[in-house]
Amino acid sequence: MSTAESELRIGMVGYAFMGAAHSQAWRIVNRVYDLPVRARMAMICGRDETNVSAAADRLGWERYTTSWRELVDRDDIDVVDICTPGDSHAEIALAALAAGKHVLCEKPLANTVAEAQSMVAAAQTARADGTLSMCGFTYRRVPAVTVMRDLIAAGRLGVIRHVRAAYLQDWIVDPQFPLVWRLQNDKAGSGALGDIGAHIIDLTQFVTGQRIATVSALTETFVTERPLPVGAGSLTGSAGAGTGPVTVDDAALFLARLDGGAVATYEATRFATGRKNGLRVEINGSQGSVTFDLERLNELEFYDAARPGSEQGFTRILVTEPDHPYLSAWWPPGHLIGYEHAFTHQARDFLDAIATGTDPRPSFADALQVQQVLDAVGRAADEKASWTDVDAGPDHQF
Amino acid sequence: MSTAESELRIGMVGYAFMGAAHSQAWRIVNRVYDLPVRARMAMICGRDETNVSAAADRLGWERYTTSWRELVDRDDIDVVDICTPGDSHAEIALAALAAGKHVLCEKPLANTVAEAQSMVAAAQTARADGTLSMCGFTYRRVPAVTVMRDLIAAGRLGVIRHVRAAYLQDWIVDPQFPLVWRLQNDKAGSGALGDIGAHIIDLTQFVTGQRIATVSALTETFVTERPLPVGAGSLTGSAGAGTGPVTVDDAALFLARLDGGAVATYEATRFATGRKNGLRVEINGSQGSVTFDLERLNELEFYDAARPGSEQGFTRILVTEPDHPYLSAWWPPGHLIGYEHAFTHQARDFLDAIATGTDPRPSFADALQVQQVLDAVGRAADEKASWTDVDAGPDHQF
Amino acid sequence: MSTAESELRIGMVGYAFMGAAHSQAWRIVNRVYDLPVRARMAMICGRDETNVSAAADRLGWERYTTSWRELVDRDDIDVVDICTPGDSHAEIALAALAAGKHVLCEKPLANTVAEAQSMVAAAQTARADGTLSMCGFTYRRVPAVTVMRDLIAAGRLGVIRHVRAAYLQDWIVDPQFPLVWRLQNDKAGSGALGDIGAHIIDLTQFVTGQRIATVSALTETFVTERPLPVGAGSLTGSAGAGTGPVTVDDAALFLARLDGGAVATYEATRFATGRKNGLRVEINGSQGSVTFDLERLNELEFYDAARPGSEQGFTRILVTEPDHPYLSAWWPPGHLIGYEHAFTHQARDFLDAIATGTDPRPSFADALQVQQVLDAVGRAADEKASWTDVDAGPDHQF
Amino acid sequence: MSTAESELRIGMVGYAFMGAAHSQAWRIVNRVYDLPVRARMAMICGRDETNVSAAADRLGWERYTTSWRELVDRDDIDVVDICTPGDSHAEIALAALAAGKHVLCEKPLANTVAEAQSMVAAAQTARADGTLSMCGFTYRRVPAVTVMRDLIAAGRLGVIRHVRAAYLQDWIVDPQFPLVWRLQNDKAGSGALGDIGAHIIDLTQFVTGQRIATVSALTETFVTERPLPVGAGSLTGSAGAGTGPVTVDDAALFLARLDGGAVATYEATRFATGRKNGLRVEINGSQGSVTFDLERLNELEFYDAARPGSEQGFTRILVTEPDHPYLSAWWPPGHLIGYEHAFTHQARDFLDAIATGTDPRPSFADALQVQQVLDAVGRAADEKASWTDVDAGPDHQF
Repeated sequence: MSTAESELRIGMVGYAFMGAAHSQAWRIVNRVYDLPVRARMAMICGRDETNVSAAADRLGWERYTTSWRELVDRDDIDVVDICTPGDSHAEIALAALAAGKHVLCEKPLANTVAEAQSMVAAAQTARADGTLSMCGFTYRRVPAVTVMRDLIAAGRLGVIRHVRAAYLQDWIVDPQFPLVWRLQNDKAGSGALGDIGAHIIDLTQFVTGQRIATVSALTETFVTERPLPVGAGSLTGSAGAGTGPVTVDDAALFLARLDGGAVATYEATRFATGRKNGLRVEINGSQGSVTFDLERLNELEFYDAARPGSEQGFTRILVTEPDHPYLSAWWPPGHLIGYEHAFTHQARDFLDAIATGTDPRPSFADALQVQQVLDAVGRAADEKASWTDVDAGPDHQF
Repeated sequence: MSTAESELRIGMVGYAFMGAAHSQAWRIVNRVYDLPVRARMAMICGRDETNVSAAADRLGWERYTTSWRELVDRDDIDVVDICTPGDSHAEIALAALAAGKHVLCEKPLANTVAEAQSMVAAAQTARADGTLSMCGFTYRRVPAVTVMRDLIAAGRLGVIRHVRAAYLQDWIVDPQFPLVWRLQNDKAGSGALGDIGAHIIDLTQFVTGQRIATVSALTETFVTERPLPVGAGSLTGSAGAGTGPVTVDDAALFLARLDGGAVATYEATRFATGRKNGLRVEINGSQGSVTFDLERLNELEFYDAARPGSEQGFTRILVTEPDHPYLSAWWPPGHLIGYEHAFTHQARDFLDAIATGTDPRPSFADALQVQQVLDAVGRAADEKASWTDVDAGPDHQF
Repeated sequence: MSTAESELRIGMVGYAFMGAAHSQAWRIVNRVYDLPVRARMAMICGRDETNVSAAADRLGWERYTTSWRELVDRDDIDVVDICTPGDSHAEIALAALAAGKHVLCEKPLANTVAEAQSMVAAAQTARADGTLSMCGFTYRRVPAVTVMRDLIAAGRLGVIRHVRAAYLQDWIVDPQFPLVWRLQNDKAGSGALGDIGAHIIDLTQFVTGQRIATVSALTETFVTERPLPVGAGSLTGSAGAGTGPVTVDDAALFLARLDGGAVATYEATRFATGRKNGLRVEINGSQGSVTFDLERLNELEFYDAARPGSEQGFTRILVTEPDHPYLSAWWPPGHLIGYEHAFTHQARDFLDAIATGTDPRPSFADALQVQQVLDAVGRAADEKASWTDVDAGPDHQF
Repeated sequence: MSTAESELRIGMVGYAFMGAAHSQAWRIVNRVYDLPVRARMAMICGRDETNVSAAADRLGWERYTTSWRELVDRDDIDVVDICTPGDSHAEIALAALAAGKHVLCEKPLANTVAEAQSMVAAAQTARADGTLSMCGFTYRRVPAVTVMRDLIAAGRLGVIRHVRAAYLQDWIVDPQFPLVWRLQNDKAGSGALGDIGAHIIDLTQFVTGQRIATVSALTETFVTERPLPVGAGSLTGSAGAGTGPVTVDDAALFLARLDGGAVATYEATRFATGRKNGLRVEINGSQGSVTFDLERLNELEFYDAARPGSEQGFTRILVTEPDHPYLSAWWPPGHLIGYEHAFTHQARDFLDAIATGTDPRPSFADALQVQQVLDAVGRAADEKASWTDVDAGPDHQF
């Protein structure tokens, strides 16, 4: 693995949280997995020259630029990796695909269905020329999630009846937390819904093989005015002078019917005090159940109704065995992997798809469908009239 | 404690699961707690003489009758304890209250709001004569639940933002499970909704001090036809010849807004394979969170955001200390109590209320309000038009 | 079940913690189980008339006496239930057996091996006349423990390699906790060792079917002087004036080899801050493992190495199914039992043994063997010379 | 950070499991942390040219050699990182220190106390010239372990009374698992004792600040003959023809008294079926307790007896906050780290120590003391006569 032909030169746009996670993946993917191509961290792009220069040095990128158009147009870039806020995904992706670059785009695919549709169209056109695209719903590549999907696909749970999904965080419970870009509708498109709700929509559809058909929803913004941040754009920017309105949801809750007959509850919130990154999923089928919690991402609980009755129970599978997905290349059984490993698995699968000319998943079309669910949830939450009031009862206190 | 004046002679109607649990409570309540009155298990009532006679002997009741009207009318009965299916609650309770008997009625209070309203009216009339009434939402008296309420009432969680409640069982996942009375609308009023959904409605309203104001819902019956049971009425009756239609919901899911500003998800189902009696509640407030699981009923998890940041986490409180509610009379710390202990706590509180002439809670009015929520959920689930469909996306498979 | 012939008249000596637990068992055993004989709570005995009179009234015993000899000698007593401190077990049991009464004796059987041997001899003599005896190692009758034994007996764990047992409490961590009888060698025989260590010795030998052959041990008394208690004998007596020496161990740790080839660690302590009643056992065999924790007594974890490799894990069995031991008479699946239920199971099995003339277990001989282990541990702990010092290393601080 | 002066050129000996873990650390340490020096992966060494060449390419080392002496003697190597089996540690380390290279040596430091003593002497001599050395007890740098140490050092647990430590694995339960080098005394020095027992010795001494003073022990080899491996040296080598004797312990159990007054149980085994990498530690003090499990390495449980009684319990701290040790450089709260991150933390601390000229810990002297404990345990296990037999009791079966 040393010839130029076998290299894929990566150009990454964005260098914040997602940029760091993706960098780690490109940096080590070929050190962990034997692959037919090797990723080269060729160029990083950011708007602020001082910051992007420091990021290039720190994260180990060969060059940097402050113009994503330059990055997209260069001949010595093969893959464009988009790690920016959602409002710029479509523009960058369309340009990259037009320039014949393979595209890996962070989720959610876009801020609107219309943008996502244009990206799907561009991806399909580019596909004819062998240019591939993929959306970064990384959690599909947490091994325990992949095992969940495999168990369901193998029929081990029987007919799926219930999906119970929540993504619980608490990083903005403090009303003094500043108005960062993720709390602004024009940058982020939505709040908890698109940021973390999108993950549980994709993950549950992925593992069950069913799609959400119809929803009923509510969204809520508990803290409507926040201090303006000192620096622009930072997730952790400190509060400055003045305040501004929060223009996204703090929490989004919805019920759903899936096209395979399952019924579901979904909840995405940034106000679940004490839950740091609590993505929790439980699936109940006629023959068994599975549960997963991202705060214990090396574990999967599986209930197999085919076992003898007196021995039934939820089995805590430590998903660290060499015959579990992605894990033979890592450490011995019982040695945990962390959050960022799924990004390495994603990089592996994307590199492999490019090398072999197969279509990587989740495709832009997969991601558009998630966008359509987000859109339906947003519309449902606006239709307040559809709710049913509880009749006033006798007056009493608890 | 030996004079007749200090005795309350209990007459119980029904002798199945709830009858057995209530009998255990009356049997031991004065052996555990020092109370100003003593319960006497005076008479049990059931329709089938052979069965009720055996139940009287087995459970330790002095006499039996096959006529609840006789029981209600007797001068030597002070308290009527109603443990029958919901379709007979109103009639028995109205008669008992009219006869001046204190009434403890199992939940849900009735099968309809109208019945419940008539019971509240009768209870209020009877109250003027010193006759008391109470509804058996027993889980309020699981010590961990009481602690949860106390923490919230003391402001330890701050402003309540989220309620997350599910009551998960799996006893009818097998389509060959017979069509027992709990699956028949005319007997049970509803299915999972009224049976176990009522518990999480009451419990979450009790602990938060907020009432459900408006809901959006779905209900589902996964298995619509079942074998007729061999014996009538039994929870565990075996399947006989022929089948009949299931006329209640297998699962009920709803979103809610509470009148104090919290948003909520609720789910009651008998199809959560592997969950036997999984009543789970999580409450998130601005200053902390609590979680409870009835399958680990001696435990409460409490997250206190007032602790130093690096030491924050969910604390698993083993609710078995003498300064926890109800527990000083039981065993030393770390010695668990079981499911039926809450019935003893309920008996204690009811006896104490009668002895002191104070109003026991949950009152019939409290229970009526739960009935109104159940009614709103039922209506909301019928209003299918209010749902929002997800637009058809590109055709693809997962 | 109504003739006098089918009754067994119980006489219980002692009315503190164990007396209350045994009373609950005698009170309800026939209400829960169908048995050929019925227990009658005939007489209770205690030294202090005021206290024993109140206990009789509170706990529901028909008569009381302050003389255990009177109780033992009465013709209208069939069973003597010994719930006193260990120093009086032998004397009462010998008299009761001589008087032809069946005897249930709390653990540990005695304070010395010699006493226990005399009790075994008396029990064997009495057995010839049909008089039965049993020692109250109640935890054998926690259903999850019984399941553990059944799994091992069925070979599901293969060859047993490891036993890992600890009984962790913390009720005397506070040095101001008074010098109650359990901290006095003449009353209690030993401290944590005999009180809770005896439980894990019996339990692990019971479930593995192997006996401890040889041990190495240490014991420790962390707090050697404590306030004298205000009242005598109480577990929870408050501190009074003056202090006295603690004459028992606070903690006992030992290694063991079992006669079937397993190696083991045992630990009994009253100084494990935060552990209230943490009896924890893990057994590893060549084909599987089981774990149990008394603070979650309705659960058993079972690892079955015969399952497919990628699905292996510890299965949390909720031991509340009707086909689990003792449980068909209790509540539906998922409805927990508590600490005292094992006493009811013990009463059931003892009554059944008497009715059918079979030998109840654990026998006095079983209990003598536990006493011999306790004795060996005590001797081993005294033999300090057998320990191996770590050579002095270079001087450094951590 | 780009001048040659600020670089430390690493030469690593060994490329198996530990070599891969160390490579990952050197590869990313400067991408995660801002440090005054930068690690350069200069040379890797292994005996087999084909294998080491492939390892160099795969793991990203600039050059390779088959001679560790060459690596040690080169002028362009600044740090020697020893990842070989224990039998070669002393020879390589002595040569490297003599050549003025900083040395990081995997644990256990050596196979014998004598070797370890020679290494300590060499390290002290080298220190005078500014050459540093460190032993790789990596688990000290799992953030949850560091927090445990900090809590105890701050007095939050009060006086330490109990240490309860076990390192449980199961990778050789199958008797067909081949006779790899870790099962051969001449290569590995000991079995479970030195491999994983050394970890819990170091970890518990580190967190408590107390040293083990005296021990009582047993060791056991359950499977005494195993198939010879096909390839030499591999952890996972498949079984070949013929068998050979296992010359190390499968399990080592010991009791200990620590020099600060705590008593302890230790267990290291490769026969705990179902436990993959179960390093578990519980520490009980007079004011609180902590527990840790390496299979959930992002979590720490802390019991604080200073909290109000009714709110006490074990708090599950998710050790992923920016103010937890090492974590500000990683991901947002709730995003887990994995097994190998501790190696990156170790690399960070070692590089920092070299850059600042401070003494890294654990020093060779720290590691010698662990070796002395291992030695005492081995001697204690051989002194079988010190054990106390249980007297033969009455003959009976369970």
